Amino acid sequence: MNHDLPDTVTLIEVGPRDGFQFEKKIIPTDLKIEIISGLVEAGLKQIQVTSFVNPDKVPQMADAEDLVRRLPESADAIYSGLVLNTRGVRRAQQAGLTHVEISISASDTHSRHNTGMSLARAVTQVKEMIGLAHQADLNIRAGIQCAFGCVFEGEIPQQRILGLVRDYVSCGVDAIAISDTTGMADPVAVKKLMGMLVPEIGSIPIMLHFHDTRGLGLANVLAALQCGITHFDTSLAGMGGCPFVPGATGNIATEDTAHLMAAMGIATGIDISRVVPCSLRLENFLNTRFPGKIHRLPIPTNA
Amino acid sequence: MNHDLPDTVTLIEVGPRDGFQFEKKIIPTDLKIEIISGLVEAGLKQIQVTSFVNPDKVPQMADAEDLVRRLPESADAIYSGLVLNTRGVRRAQQAGLTHVEISISASDTHSRHNTGMSLARAVTQVKEMIGLAHQADLNIRAGIQCAFGCVFEGEIPQQRILGLVRDYVSCGVDAIAISDTTGMADPVAVKKLMGMLVPEIGSIPIMLHFHDTRGLGLANVLAALQCGITHFDTSLAGMGGCPFVPGATGNIATEDTAHLMAAMGIATGIDISRVVPCSLRLENFLNTRFPGKIHRLPIPTNA
Repeated sequence: MNHDLPDTVTLIEVGPRDGFQFEKKIIPTDLKIEIISGLVEAGLKQIQVTSFVNPDKVPQMADAEDLVRRLPESADAIYSGLVLNTRGVRRAQQAGLTHVEISISASDTHSRHNTGMSLARAVTQVKEMIGLAHQADLNIRAGIQCAFGCVFEGEIPQQRILGLVRDYVSCGVDAIAISDTTGMADPVAVKKLMGMLVPEIGSIPIMLHFHDTRGLGLANVLAALQCGITHFDTSLAGMGGCPFVPGATGNIATEDTAHLMAAMGIATGIDISRVVPCSLRLENFLNTRFPGKIHRLPIPTNA
Repeated sequence: MNHDLPDTVTLIEVGPRDGFQFEKKIIPTDLKIEIISGLVEAGLKQIQVTSFVNPDKVPQMADAEDLVRRLPESADAIYSGLVLNTRGVRRAQQAGLTHVEISISASDTHSRHNTGMSLARAVTQVKEMIGLAHQADLNIRAGIQCAFGCVFEGEIPQQRILGLVRDYVSCGVDAIAISDTTGMADPVAVKKLMGMLVPEIGSIPIMLHFHDTRGLGLANVLAALQCGITHFDTSLAGMGGCPFVPGATGNIATEDTAHLMAAMGIATGIDISRVVPCSLRLENFLNTRFPGKIHRLPIPTNA
């Protein structure tokens, strides 16, 4: 019945980066380590733990080096950090990370808003960063933000995405992340873009990063699975989103996505019941309710 | 690209019944009429407006007759009421409704909890109700609750669902509603059940009723669309759910489902921007936040 679905899927936990960065209340490094340790114990094998950004701009990430030093040792888990410039690449390496994520926005307007750089300038910079990361022998995941549309520019031409992907492939990156930064993807758009990219990319894994802003996150995941995609970014309890957009919601939730997979007989290696306490611990500390569903149920899952 | 998807889909608004019935605060009939009128103006063409139940048990529905009398006249809209017994069928007819929904639980345990009747007894009663509704020349939608699993019994054998559907077909009902009462469906289960039922039912429309309890509501809709299903129950803002289950959530949201369809180029005839004020009006009156996404966005939709 599910011959069109993969047997195994990898969820990449991005809560400690994409989720934490939007919280105004500083989460102590101790608590961050407690959560990351809990996620490793729950079976998450790839975790984006921090970003190397200007601490004046993002105080929540000021502890990046300290956090990396204190990460739980695990033979299974891969830790990565987001880097925005060559300085970030150097910091990540010096901190001792082996994996970095480098990212670019497919929207010129979004790029200028977010980084002050035009898309063309950003492409030049990202190539420098990849060169530096190669010299440092770092594993590189290269991302494209706003791949399914931009709140400023609307639809993004697929040829532009294809061009950026080709640039990345020619630079020799290890994985490519396609991000629906603003939650504007839909299942037909996912199939269209993946139908174009999958044959192009060959053996480099494509990782999809969906936000659930308009409620379509898991429908988009289903469409992507049907295209053969097996790697998805998720955040515990669906943390994330933008604090400046009321009602804007975060990444698809780790628990909910793991439940979708379990219900369909797809292995993730994740013990949902061990993710849930991490989510509840953070909700309690931050005195908030995250948008995920499974962590709120009295019995977390039927799977 | 979307050759496997239908061109047109009908959303059946069940908020005024499935959503309202769980609210403890009585919604005045005036406000109910205001909301239903708003939904008709937004393009909803089938609306389940009330249920004919014991007002002592469900005070929110005590105004059923009064509400039906005051429904906005519309050449486009079809109004229906839920009925639980022969007395309900008579009340619906006398109130002036032309469409009723009759329903049965596929779970014996759930049936006993909910109605005090065994499944066998419920089947006998539902046949009496259908006979009476036929005499009264009412259009009959016949539902099966817990079709995708039951919190008490777990998985429900598909052969049992098939047997109930055959009973309904042989009774000559006008539509069949398959309900995921507890939000336990997943896309693979949807494809499996629909793969069995669609060839069996022939030309009688199958209408799917999903709850988003575990966040899989719209992924299930996508799977159902791929099976050729074109009718879905939704409730404005995702109202509904059970007040006794913390975190339990309601039906899939009308706005979010309409957005999914619009984004994929499927026509519903619904103006999302006219549904949203109805949702916000109710949230304001009930001093709550419903789980739907689109109605909370500053700009309700990008579609």
